[in-house]
Amino acid sequence: MKPIKVGLLGAGTVGAGTFNVLQRNQEEIRRRAGRGIEITMVAARNLDKARAVVGAGVEVVGDPFAVVNNPDIDIVVELIGGYDLPRELVLQAIANGKHVVTANKALLALHGNEIFAAAQEKGVTVAFEAAVAGGVPIIKALREGLTANRIESVAGIINGTTNFILSEMREKGLDFATVLKQAQELGYAEADPTFDIEGVDAAHKLTIMSAIAFGIPVQFDKAYIEGISQLQARDIRYAEQLGYRIKLLGITRRTQTEGKEGGEGIELRVHPTLIPSSRLIANVEGAMNAVLVQADAVGASLYYGKGAGSEPTASAVIADLVDVTRLATVDPYCRVPHLAFQPNQMTDVAIVPMAEITTSYYLRVYVKDQLGVMADLTRILADAGISIDAVLQKEPGDQVNLDIILLTHQTREKNIDAAIEKIEQLPAVISKVTRIRLETLS
Amino acid sequence: MKPIKVGLLGAGTVGAGTFNVLQRNQEEIRRRAGRGIEITMVAARNLDKARAVVGAGVEVVGDPFAVVNNPDIDIVVELIGGYDLPRELVLQAIANGKHVVTANKALLALHGNEIFAAAQEKGVTVAFEAAVAGGVPIIKALREGLTANRIESVAGIINGTTNFILSEMREKGLDFATVLKQAQELGYAEADPTFDIEGVDAAHKLTIMSAIAFGIPVQFDKAYIEGISQLQARDIRYAEQLGYRIKLLGITRRTQTEGKEGGEGIELRVHPTLIPSSRLIANVEGAMNAVLVQADAVGASLYYGKGAGSEPTASAVIADLVDVTRLATVDPYCRVPHLAFQPNQMTDVAIVPMAEITTSYYLRVYVKDQLGVMADLTRILADAGISIDAVLQKEPGDQVNLDIILLTHQTREKNIDAAIEKIEQLPAVISKVTRIRLETLS
Repeated sequence: MKPIKVGLLGAGTVGAGTFNVLQRNQEEIRRRAGRGIEITMVAARNLDKARAVVGAGVEVVGDPFAVVNNPDIDIVVELIGGYDLPRELVLQAIANGKHVVTANKALLALHGNEIFAAAQEKGVTVAFEAAVAGGVPIIKALREGLTANRIESVAGIINGTTNFILSEMREKGLDFATVLKQAQELGYAEADPTFDIEGVDAAHKLTIMSAIAFGIPVQFDKAYIEGISQLQARDIRYAEQLGYRIKLLGITRRTQTEGKEGGEGIELRVHPTLIPSSRLIANVEGAMNAVLVQADAVGASLYYGKGAGSEPTASAVIADLVDVTRLATVDPYCRVPHLAFQPNQMTDVAIVPMAEITTSYYLRVYVKDQLGVMADLTRILADAGISIDAVLQKEPGDQVNLDIILLTHQTREKNIDAAIEKIEQLPAVISKVTRIRLETLS
Repeated sequence: MKPIKVGLLGAGTVGAGTFNVLQRNQEEIRRRAGRGIEITMVAARNLDKARAVVGAGVEVVGDPFAVVNNPDIDIVVELIGGYDLPRELVLQAIANGKHVVTANKALLALHGNEIFAAAQEKGVTVAFEAAVAGGVPIIKALREGLTANRIESVAGIINGTTNFILSEMREKGLDFATVLKQAQELGYAEADPTFDIEGVDAAHKLTIMSAIAFGIPVQFDKAYIEGISQLQARDIRYAEQLGYRIKLLGITRRTQTEGKEGGEGIELRVHPTLIPSSRLIANVEGAMNAVLVQADAVGASLYYGKGAGSEPTASAVIADLVDVTRLATVDPYCRVPHLAFQPNQMTDVAIVPMAEITTSYYLRVYVKDQLGVMADLTRILADAGISIDAVLQKEPGDQVNLDIILLTHQTREKNIDAAIEKIEQLPAVISKVTRIRLETLS
């Protein structure tokens, strides 16, 4: 059988990795796929740099539409990043009847519904294992490995930059700004790190996983997103003393809302989260990724590995290329649906607003050291029906004031917010209450 | 589209789980698969018990060949266990043009080559996700998720019974016999636990993974198998003091053999293994399973979850049913090959004998407390070219003699065995040297 022909859009880090791994392991890959997979055309902004990567045998062009519109190309690999141009290119490739492989989580989190509908209509595949957790085959696990299950929740460390920063903050007792600067010098954080540190990148990935897990459309606009830039070194320290680690978790799970409008809903949220130190996922350190899935038949399962980087991401891109190659010519109905569920079998279960989520909380209240302040705090929580799991009292170093740390049982977010408002009105309370969510992940 | 019809061989724990999960999640599964999956016939030894599980709508028979020869059945699920009868049934099902799903690792480790060849010949699929690590989709990850990679090694905790026993021994400081008895009472170990505790079950699973990882035939007869029944509580304790945990690991990896016959080889071995406590896999406790894969592009990735039990195993059986259902009618060439590599693309890289493997070692030497014994020990190792990483000296409690524990650098197994022979001839050495292999898994 003739090799399948691949056109690459973008010859940056992942593009070069994809080319190199395909070259180095071509025998291994062909022995598996039963057919050669050849990159025959590359579009790149920097032509000389691209030529240095792919050598003489591959056509290098500046215009990505030349790849997308080339009738000789069977599969387009989109590695450009961003939203608008990739959207146009991917839709054009689909319109031309080409299969697409992409690592672009932003594109799919925002325009996935449109793109998957177009692909469905045209009978082609858009594959995106590389969009979530790099080389860890988590999309395949969720979409194919766990098909027997009603999935209950997905919780993941899905951004390497923030996990690296949090690991360093904890191990070395440093503050956020110092570690961010180091991470930038080491290449673990970008010059403009906003998307990573503010949780946007994690939310893109989580949005995709939520769709696959629950059979809902991608709904990035409904995601709650809170990053790690406000996190203080002392909260990491106090958490550790209480037996917890703080991780930036993306969490999506089924929930029940209250009241007469109550019913099934889906939580979709990214935020710093306390996790018991004894959990496997709490021990995922450095730039590594891990995704913990809870499902009714299989129980808990966890998937761990490198979430980014040239060859780990290339590993996922090429796995998609092999899958697409195998099924390039079959009836589209025989392929795995893009979002795990058949397109006419999606549900419209709503994403719930944050006020309606249920979780536990870490509260740090900075107070004047005076009689009765603990009684006032605990009274407010008791009146709100919120139970307390643990209390810690610490002198942060100024010899006059105190940090009081409280861990609560599960409650609705709106309840804790109302209680915090009352706490902040107490005369002994000096500043805003620090509130970090806590998940036992049991 | 009409539902696909499934015949179940065996209505025990996994059979009941498969039926129950298919019933409970039938909507969820149909929405994913795009087609109903129905168990219409069950063969069981105990007809009444089977009828109690599947209810009135399903035909229950005593003769499994009645299922295998029923022209209405599309897919046969083999959950009987053992070798001879399942082999006959599976080959008959294949001959009748039926797809097969099996959870039977023993069958595949011993007769896999014959069975896969017959399936290939007939153009049907034999799926076996449930044969390794229960509900964890590790077969799918190795076979489809990591197709881009040259896989370097697979190391797994793939037997829940032994991991439960080792966890209990460590946590409670108990000896093997005591914990085994408790495990039997709790249902974590069978009345005859030989296959689990002596490593045979793990070796079955490892044999299957080695074939998929490296593109070699299944070769259970070449596997080295050592169980945990000889493991002593004090070795677990000493290991912990040195920063290690002892796990029953199945390890298969590429290696280079020496000498004029030297070249590429594959290690295939199951034995108790020291692992640095800081590794994620060292912290997999209780009856849980985990598999760590090292591959050239993606680096290290780990897959964790329940390795046995009714519904976790059913989760894998049903995932296979969905996969087989999707591709039941396509050209077999479009399906994923049984052993990851195309059948005409397997290699004959040999499994190396244990004398040729390379690893590090934990040695415990029980000696009379007399001058010069440490010098004699270290001299023997130095003469054999074996470097020492750590030394620990302990009084095991008899007030007279000593345990000397040595951790070595990597060396060939034949070198350490030769050195041990010399050590055991020293006058101060009281009993056989305890030797446990050590893997840093870095």
